[in-house]
Amino acid sequence: MSNKMFDFDIETLGEAKISSPIRMSRNNGDGMADYVSDEDRILYSVQTHEEDGVRKPLLDDTMEEAGPREKIYFNPSHVHAAICTCGGICPGLNNVIRAVVRCFWYRYGVRRISGIQYGYLGLLENSSWPLIPLDPDVVDDIQEKGGTILGSARGGGKQVEEIVDSLERLNINILITIGGDGTLRGAYDIGEEIKRRGLKIAVVGVPKTIDNDLSFIDSSFGFDTAVASAVPSVRGAHVEAKNSINGIGLVKVMGRESGYIAAHTSLAQSDVNFCLIPESPFDLDGPNGLLEHVKRRILERGHAVILVAEGAGQEFAPPTGETDASGNIKYHDIGIFLKEKLKSYFKDEGIPTSIKYIDPSYIIRSAPANSYDSIYCARLGAHAVHAAMAGKTQCLVSRVNNQFVYLPIKQAVSKRSHVDIEGTLWRDVLENTRQPFSMKN
Amino acid sequence: MSNKMFDFDIETLGEAKISSPIRMSRNNGDGMADYVSDEDRILYSVQTHEEDGVRKPLLDDTMEEAGPREKIYFNPSHVHAAICTCGGICPGLNNVIRAVVRCFWYRYGVRRISGIQYGYLGLLENSSWPLIPLDPDVVDDIQEKGGTILGSARGGGKQVEEIVDSLERLNINILITIGGDGTLRGAYDIGEEIKRRGLKIAVVGVPKTIDNDLSFIDSSFGFDTAVASAVPSVRGAHVEAKNSINGIGLVKVMGRESGYIAAHTSLAQSDVNFCLIPESPFDLDGPNGLLEHVKRRILERGHAVILVAEGAGQEFAPPTGETDASGNIKYHDIGIFLKEKLKSYFKDEGIPTSIKYIDPSYIIRSAPANSYDSIYCARLGAHAVHAAMAGKTQCLVSRVNNQFVYLPIKQAVSKRSHVDIEGTLWRDVLENTRQPFSMKN
Amino acid sequence: MSNKMFDFDIETLGEAKISSPIRMSRNNGDGMADYVSDEDRILYSVQTHEEDGVRKPLLDDTMEEAGPREKIYFNPSHVHAAICTCGGICPGLNNVIRAVVRCFWYRYGVRRISGIQYGYLGLLENSSWPLIPLDPDVVDDIQEKGGTILGSARGGGKQVEEIVDSLERLNINILITIGGDGTLRGAYDIGEEIKRRGLKIAVVGVPKTIDNDLSFIDSSFGFDTAVASAVPSVRGAHVEAKNSINGIGLVKVMGRESGYIAAHTSLAQSDVNFCLIPESPFDLDGPNGLLEHVKRRILERGHAVILVAEGAGQEFAPPTGETDASGNIKYHDIGIFLKEKLKSYFKDEGIPTSIKYIDPSYIIRSAPANSYDSIYCARLGAHAVHAAMAGKTQCLVSRVNNQFVYLPIKQAVSKRSHVDIEGTLWRDVLENTRQPFSMKN
Amino acid sequence: MSNKMFDFDIETLGEAKISSPIRMSRNNGDGMADYVSDEDRILYSVQTHEEDGVRKPLLDDTMEEAGPREKIYFNPSHVHAAICTCGGICPGLNNVIRAVVRCFWYRYGVRRISGIQYGYLGLLENSSWPLIPLDPDVVDDIQEKGGTILGSARGGGKQVEEIVDSLERLNINILITIGGDGTLRGAYDIGEEIKRRGLKIAVVGVPKTIDNDLSFIDSSFGFDTAVASAVPSVRGAHVEAKNSINGIGLVKVMGRESGYIAAHTSLAQSDVNFCLIPESPFDLDGPNGLLEHVKRRILERGHAVILVAEGAGQEFAPPTGETDASGNIKYHDIGIFLKEKLKSYFKDEGIPTSIKYIDPSYIIRSAPANSYDSIYCARLGAHAVHAAMAGKTQCLVSRVNNQFVYLPIKQAVSKRSHVDIEGTLWRDVLENTRQPFSMKN
Repeated sequence: MSNKMFDFDIETLGEAKISSPIRMSRNNGDGMADYVSDEDRILYSVQTHEEDGVRKPLLDDTMEEAGPREKIYFNPSHVHAAICTCGGICPGLNNVIRAVVRCFWYRYGVRRISGIQYGYLGLLENSSWPLIPLDPDVVDDIQEKGGTILGSARGGGKQVEEIVDSLERLNINILITIGGDGTLRGAYDIGEEIKRRGLKIAVVGVPKTIDNDLSFIDSSFGFDTAVASAVPSVRGAHVEAKNSINGIGLVKVMGRESGYIAAHTSLAQSDVNFCLIPESPFDLDGPNGLLEHVKRRILERGHAVILVAEGAGQEFAPPTGETDASGNIKYHDIGIFLKEKLKSYFKDEGIPTSIKYIDPSYIIRSAPANSYDSIYCARLGAHAVHAAMAGKTQCLVSRVNNQFVYLPIKQAVSKRSHVDIEGTLWRDVLENTRQPFSMKN
Repeated sequence: MSNKMFDFDIETLGEAKISSPIRMSRNNGDGMADYVSDEDRILYSVQTHEEDGVRKPLLDDTMEEAGPREKIYFNPSHVHAAICTCGGICPGLNNVIRAVVRCFWYRYGVRRISGIQYGYLGLLENSSWPLIPLDPDVVDDIQEKGGTILGSARGGGKQVEEIVDSLERLNINILITIGGDGTLRGAYDIGEEIKRRGLKIAVVGVPKTIDNDLSFIDSSFGFDTAVASAVPSVRGAHVEAKNSINGIGLVKVMGRESGYIAAHTSLAQSDVNFCLIPESPFDLDGPNGLLEHVKRRILERGHAVILVAEGAGQEFAPPTGETDASGNIKYHDIGIFLKEKLKSYFKDEGIPTSIKYIDPSYIIRSAPANSYDSIYCARLGAHAVHAAMAGKTQCLVSRVNNQFVYLPIKQAVSKRSHVDIEGTLWRDVLENTRQPFSMKN
Repeated sequence: MSNKMFDFDIETLGEAKISSPIRMSRNNGDGMADYVSDEDRILYSVQTHEEDGVRKPLLDDTMEEAGPREKIYFNPSHVHAAICTCGGICPGLNNVIRAVVRCFWYRYGVRRISGIQYGYLGLLENSSWPLIPLDPDVVDDIQEKGGTILGSARGGGKQVEEIVDSLERLNINILITIGGDGTLRGAYDIGEEIKRRGLKIAVVGVPKTIDNDLSFIDSSFGFDTAVASAVPSVRGAHVEAKNSINGIGLVKVMGRESGYIAAHTSLAQSDVNFCLIPESPFDLDGPNGLLEHVKRRILERGHAVILVAEGAGQEFAPPTGETDASGNIKYHDIGIFLKEKLKSYFKDEGIPTSIKYIDPSYIIRSAPANSYDSIYCARLGAHAVHAAMAGKTQCLVSRVNNQFVYLPIKQAVSKRSHVDIEGTLWRDVLENTRQPFSMKN
Repeated sequence: MSNKMFDFDIETLGEAKISSPIRMSRNNGDGMADYVSDEDRILYSVQTHEEDGVRKPLLDDTMEEAGPREKIYFNPSHVHAAICTCGGICPGLNNVIRAVVRCFWYRYGVRRISGIQYGYLGLLENSSWPLIPLDPDVVDDIQEKGGTILGSARGGGKQVEEIVDSLERLNINILITIGGDGTLRGAYDIGEEIKRRGLKIAVVGVPKTIDNDLSFIDSSFGFDTAVASAVPSVRGAHVEAKNSINGIGLVKVMGRESGYIAAHTSLAQSDVNFCLIPESPFDLDGPNGLLEHVKRRILERGHAVILVAEGAGQEFAPPTGETDASGNIKYHDIGIFLKEKLKSYFKDEGIPTSIKYIDPSYIIRSAPANSYDSIYCARLGAHAVHAAMAGKTQCLVSRVNNQFVYLPIKQAVSKRSHVDIEGTLWRDVLENTRQPFSMKN
């Protein structure tokens, strides 16, 4: 009996019948790289259980391997490919754009590649931003800079009909969207509308989330750079804390619903004494509350460093009620909240302290990709192109178990990933910070 | 029928009966991190094939998950743990040392931890280097520096009896060795001698290879830092090449038998036009030889960047016959060889060029770990300790499919890993450099 | 007739009669470094005017050159030297401490060197912080870290009698204080009290001001690092601004009364469009006000970057009335003020914008010294020691016209330095930002 | 009696009669930046001596202050300005180009600005490289990269008539040359030829020498970046040395005739034990020779770091007799020489060592300017433009005593600057390395 939990099947626009212009091989041993076949599938879960004395994978789900196919769907000379970047910026966007353009151009010979400005907004009827023609010269060196040369914006993803109208009008038959949860949902809806109209337009996503909170992905592009960029702030907070009498360094990093950046940064820079993430709620007051623990640390060691993810402790203040253009709820600034809280607490306790608060969020978001992410993005972008040229649609590129794979968008956005507070990552964070496993009374 | 290829079973010194001082949980859902059990095993291969219409893993081999066990073998107050670092230096050594010391000290309460100087040499009878007592204060901040505070040296691993004599004399019952192929073989042999004598000494390895050429490991610690540290040299070579008339930038990086550093660096910094690795032999002369291709590039574009792994092109010169203290054959300097070759070739062709050669090897090796490797090493070190405390021996810590696992040393050192020139990594390198897939005539 | 404006004469504790243990030469041409003599003086002002057809310096003031003297005042084996660091942290503190210790130890053979914790507070009667014995081993590598190993604090400088009591009790005969304006005034007062008591204690200052607002100094240590550390924030703000629709990047840097950091950062990273400093007051509203100019830029170019010094625009809000322990008035947060102002202004104007505010102050302050400041601090520290050993007191070390000199503290703290808005630096900033020379209506 | 040693008078093409389009002020106190006048002169020497009880400058020489003049010589709409970069690359070249273009364009409204490729070669008759039209868009962001967008080459400077022919043919009336000694001599000769022909072409130089060996300049652009870029190699050499048994780290840096880079790097990174520069000759053998000193250090401390300037120790090998295109004599590779020497010496002494040699020269040269040099180059470039527009010629821009000045090329190239081994810089280096003041027997 099959033990499958997910639907990892990829949709296609039709049969891929055209021979790929990429010269590769089907045979092993000839020294030439091999085409990837739709039949190459990798296991999703590497966990196993024993069944009748035999080790079996916990799940039978498999995912389609990414890569260039021997047969493609689109005639390269008929392709008009478009790329857009949506939502907040993140290290690596320009790397992905560059890889997409170079793969279309050099590998497939596609000569019409357009950049859409400011995400989906650039495809709305009243958009005043023209398409930007892209070629290898235009994208040469753009990876040295943070952000995206196309500009990025939230919103627009709900105006599906308007967008498909534009795609038709512009004769775009491949749309590569780089964006987060909302963007990908939009891409799926656009794909549905395309199907409804019987059009032959491939929609392929490259998932972007600096918070690394996507399921079905080892880690999202830009995440490694984000952690690396957060480290100097923690180091600075530690220096400030150690150099003051009862110094407290407080750093806030991104992480709305999941604390991956905070958790990894705590492991990368072991100066953190308290790592606060949304997945592990904590009390402020009481004998097992954060404040009491910070006090103990201050009295014992004379300084403390706290790293907080932006989504942690949201319960301490009434909801703002506001949302941004992507529909995300605006969060309270937990960093400023904690800073004030610590200040008044230690004042009440009669303990002089010096609290230094650092919020490096925009420095992190705008950093250029480091070498890890540069490699990752170069490969992600190319794989997105291979998918689109093969006629795959409503799918995205991911890396699972170190293998590049294609996933249906619908499945991919169905659930968020969270730090498992009983799992190995959080366990290792707690070992490093030596904070209590829970700060609930 | 089982489809197993490897022996991944871990040896132990005996039954682990002592309750771990680490307070964790056996139950999911209680918000507390869970112990790892010896029964937790993960699949080695994620590739699948279809069998009777069902997707199955290509191989049934599974590996033991790393992590703290509920029962341990050693009474922490009886433990005298020792650590040594062997072979050439590599980013992250100090991070691993630090993690090992902190885990022994803080998690298990072990108070006798010794650093052995200069690898196995420090355990030889005539060693003049005393043990260095280690505790969290000593290792505080050492991760900010490259290299190893214990010093590192090649050799000694064959004097197994002498080493076990020393372990006995020093009452060491846990030996953590950080080193490469030769070191691990030595560790295995030490373990065999220990068994022969009926001693209760755990020997646990942390595999170190900046070349990333170990099988059964996603990538070795220090590798990401090595690639990141190679990038500025390639960037510099590119600037030099572009700024000169017919400029050629030539960079040599590590990679004796495998070209991982060169391949990844080419993807990270796409200025490389020719990436030369040991796995893909090439001709110098002839219509499809390297020199001809470089000439074409120079005539078309006016500059070229060549990145060569140290082990590439060794066939162009007679073997040196020399070996180092680890028994490694000394290689010809392919960088200097190519520099001279290019010089004379272009002189003969009557094409003026300017060749700039950069060899950043020691800058790369001595770099401190970046954040990626800092996280990795922090976790590797702790897992080595968990293995040893549980009485596991002649094993090493690895990360496979993003999961930390324990592997028997014997199996792990049985084969080296190479860049598969028909695989996806090399394919993506060729896409980036746009060099011919083969430069053999 | 002499044209002198300043009193640059250095006080001494008495005649220096002891031969220096530093082996140098008095003769030019023997290949050996030469002692510096008290008669070696350099001109303060390099500006000239013409007088009777001859070019003469505008001022006749000269300063005593710093460096090792042939005769010293203190017998090294009688010296107990103490060092303290006061006020906010700044890049280079550890470098200065290290240089001081090494010069005392290696050059003069002084063996009693003590670190005073938390500035002058560590010398107060009720201080609970013991002296830290310092030697080359203790200070080895401390320069790799930001901040100060001694801890730093404000205040205490007014309790002059208590401090001199402590110096007497501790048998300290050389006090090196590293600190700002207030600290140096304190050092002067301590020197006066010492004189009053007829003690032989040398007090030598190393001026520290990250704002670079000291007169009589080319630029203060840590300043170059501060500018370099501010650059990534401006770069990030620019990326954020360019990537958003009507994006505005706003960065606040240090600079309470003078805008040197902001001015230099604007020159270092020419993405800044508006550089706001205390010396050049501006209006918010009106046709020539900041808001109108930002609007024009947004309408023309779609993005803007604003860099503001913390002391700029203080007139826009009523004084806080609060002071810190050094007696400095607490400033309004001009960054947050401007962010809110811009937000409401553009909302009123009906122009959608996206404002990203970055405050990197603590990241900047806590950075380790870069190579420029490392060199500078290594030399500053040694020169402070040479002064003290020669019996000079109530003086500080400075660099003027690229020469190290000794200055009387009293003169040095008599006036602050400001960016001359009619001078060449500000002129070059305006050329770079292309902002109006004045934004007053 | 005047006490002048130098001729610092600047030549001009004729009277500057045109009002500058730069709106500035002649009055102090109006809040507007002031024009610089030809009468603003600063002292060259800040050293003083006493004469009849009055302190006077050692020399009466004064230099013309750089900056925008109220009257200019060229009508901006008649200007065709050209820029070229000559010789080896150096950090900051692109920054200077960018500043030159922006100043011409934005400040003076000049619209014809051309880049000459590959230095003077691009002006030779048979040059196949077209002029590159430059404007602010073209030079936007070029400062982020090392090297020069114009390409650089040696030679051509002797073909003066050919070059002036080209200038005439191309209607170039302002030539900005960025280059070293030879380039500047060429510029002077070009200026002489222009005079001979009675042409009105201004020739203004920006001195470039990574070795910092120009007289009459505080320090040359790119020098600070060069030192900063050398530091990681020294740090790496130190790590390698400390981690091996009797490890020796050897680093070679630029410095043909002067050891400024080596000297400053030794101060910036105090791991250096022996700093070898051309100005301080040393013996290899004998009781006071380098080898004996290194041996003593190895025996005492177990490791050593040697930093050598490329021009040091050239006497140890017969002259190569070769020259490069600039006419510079090719040097022996002192780094490789010392490496072999140390190897055989310690082998003979029976002391096992491990020698690690690092040559970071091309990494250093190709680095992008750091913030210090970015500021410096931004100002240098603008000042070159101000000089040319005012009709000054055969002059260069320099910074002396922290003031930007104009100097006649003829005087400026008349002597090289060397590290004064009896002066304060070398003294402070010796204090830091603690090497003997002389290693001659």
